[in-house]
Amino acid sequence: FITKLDMELAAIEKGGYDHFMLKEIFEQPQTIHDCLRGRLDADAGTITMSGIEKHAAQILAAQRILIIACGTSWHAGLVAEYIIEELCRIPVEVEYASEFRYRNPIINKGDVILAISQSGETADTLVAIETAKEKGAIILGVVNVVGSSIARISDAGAYTHAGPEIGVASTKAFTAQLVVLLMTALKLAAEKGSISRDRYLLLCKELAAVPEKAELLLKADAQIKALAEKYKDARDFLYLGRGYNFPVALEGALKLKEISYIHAEGYPAAEMKHGPIALVDEELPVVFVATKDSYHEKVVSNIQEIKARKGKVIAVITEGDTITPTLADDIIVIPQADEMIAPILNVIPLQLLAYHIGVAKGLDVDKPRNLAKSVTVE
Amino acid sequence: FITKLDMELAAIEKGGYDHFMLKEIFEQPQTIHDCLRGRLDADAGTITMSGIEKHAAQILAAQRILIIACGTSWHAGLVAEYIIEELCRIPVEVEYASEFRYRNPIINKGDVILAISQSGETADTLVAIETAKEKGAIILGVVNVVGSSIARISDAGAYTHAGPEIGVASTKAFTAQLVVLLMTALKLAAEKGSISRDRYLLLCKELAAVPEKAELLLKADAQIKALAEKYKDARDFLYLGRGYNFPVALEGALKLKEISYIHAEGYPAAEMKHGPIALVDEELPVVFVATKDSYHEKVVSNIQEIKARKGKVIAVITEGDTITPTLADDIIVIPQADEMIAPILNVIPLQLLAYHIGVAKGLDVDKPRNLAKSVTVE
Repeated sequence: FITKLDMELAAIEKGGYDHFMLKEIFEQPQTIHDCLRGRLDADAGTITMSGIEKHAAQILAAQRILIIACGTSWHAGLVAEYIIEELCRIPVEVEYASEFRYRNPIINKGDVILAISQSGETADTLVAIETAKEKGAIILGVVNVVGSSIARISDAGAYTHAGPEIGVASTKAFTAQLVVLLMTALKLAAEKGSISRDRYLLLCKELAAVPEKAELLLKADAQIKALAEKYKDARDFLYLGRGYNFPVALEGALKLKEISYIHAEGYPAAEMKHGPIALVDEELPVVFVATKDSYHEKVVSNIQEIKARKGKVIAVITEGDTITPTLADDIIVIPQADEMIAPILNVIPLQLLAYHIGVAKGLDVDKPRNLAKSVTVE
Repeated sequence: FITKLDMELAAIEKGGYDHFMLKEIFEQPQTIHDCLRGRLDADAGTITMSGIEKHAAQILAAQRILIIACGTSWHAGLVAEYIIEELCRIPVEVEYASEFRYRNPIINKGDVILAISQSGETADTLVAIETAKEKGAIILGVVNVVGSSIARISDAGAYTHAGPEIGVASTKAFTAQLVVLLMTALKLAAEKGSISRDRYLLLCKELAAVPEKAELLLKADAQIKALAEKYKDARDFLYLGRGYNFPVALEGALKLKEISYIHAEGYPAAEMKHGPIALVDEELPVVFVATKDSYHEKVVSNIQEIKARKGKVIAVITEGDTITPTLADDIIVIPQADEMIAPILNVIPLQLLAYHIGVAKGLDVDKPRNLAKSVTVE
């Protein structure tokens, strides 16, 4: 009786989807919308984030911002590093919480630490910011679970409002982190005057359009499922990207590892020539996150190098790109978006690819072996 | 005739070794000695590095040091980050040259950039420092090839004096980089007064003892060859480490990728719980760089977690460690050394492991497929 009821409850909670992971991937247009709501007014060009507002002067006065996180949140931190450095012109360093806390890190009074965690309970991140706080650092938290330990210890911060994430592999929490971090960067840049009004307004409008574009993107689900069938027996994968898309490559690879147990590894695309390209043969699928941006031309030349070694290329490209499809074996098309917005969209098909490969292999995608939803042990 | 002569010449150049890579691994006691000679006087407690001396005041006044490199040199940079931050208390950031140069990096007049490159011709690193130099940064080069482009463009620097490296996978150049970087950190810390005289003298003595310990270590060659036979058919590998040994794990994995085409990936050990541990089953060898240091206890608990999931553990441990051998499937024993010195020694058996697995698989270890010795294209 109890088992049966539990199963039915679970089925109801999954809202018609086969797995929580799939439900959460499909929720992203809504969760991104929730994350923007009450904060972004794209027409007025305003972003309301009281936690950031209150500490803006201190943050802008900081000599550097340290981002502390683990796993998927660490990838969100890498995207934020690139965006904050570009828009706010403040040096940013991203550290693995587990490495940071056991070193004797250099923290001075007034330093700014940005902690990112879905659960808000990640043990290494929590201890890292406790130590930093004792040394007088200002702690900003980007957290999903309201009232969690990291949220409570932070001086300020912003919730990601993605709702409960049940699938062990983080999906909607990641895109919500990217949205919050981008809004934070925009707000700080506007305050500092390091962004032109035009660029600021454009990025606000682009942010507001993300839910709709994500919705559009999810229509590629059937196509990605077919791709998953084609590649599910691959021994391993490489995921490559440059610039804002380099962390997306890392995150795509991590999803595949977690869900399919296929050894996928992400790399900045140019680093492949310094070693990983030795792995490339006619068996190896290489996923390129290759949407149109300042790095695009260089990424295309990396694709050519992989094809010259007979690797299989799956390219995530921008709608309207006519060159890359002539080089790649398979393509996934993303609606046009600014290069700072694109990571939010680009990761979604990679989540789907990992999901469908995991399902095709008959694995428990909601509860991959060996993994816990939040790592509350050290 | 010509072919025959070439082959004989190559055989002579290999000095009795089957491959340049093996020769270069075995040369390390000598190359490290060469790197120290004329610089380190451990008894007097002096380190002579005129390039660093001349710019010491500027370096110590810098708000941060940026290290720019690719591939194996990037791993040396990560070790240097940890050591410089600890000894000199200056924030250090390590960037992939290819990522750094295409961003719009924040560089101010007087910023210090440390460029690391074996060949001194790595295209991405070269262009990155050219740009930084135009913006007024001070460029320090750690380079092996005398008179190379990076050496010429640098304001100061230090050669690694490892001699010509013929094997495509870098070995002796890496350990020489570590030695030069450690001497640089020691020199700066002494100048700044951020290191106690006792610790400084101890590290000088420990450095002077490296060639002898490396010699001792190389006696494990036959044992490592047997390990290679045991693990050569593994589908993939994980390499894990914490702190100073985290970059050693990355470097060990890179060597195996390059030489054996086995998909090996390095990670900071604590990050495994955030995803990669899903890969662990009874087939997967996990190499732990687990010598005695401040992180050792935590690494041991990570080993236990891998064993609980039935992974195969190969542990690189310190002589005299009685706990780890009871947990690991196989061990490689390293002579006792300070935690800042250990990376120089720990990487050597990982180079040998990659070499012997490559040879056991019948591959061309001196010229792995798809790779060039120095990446002079972008």
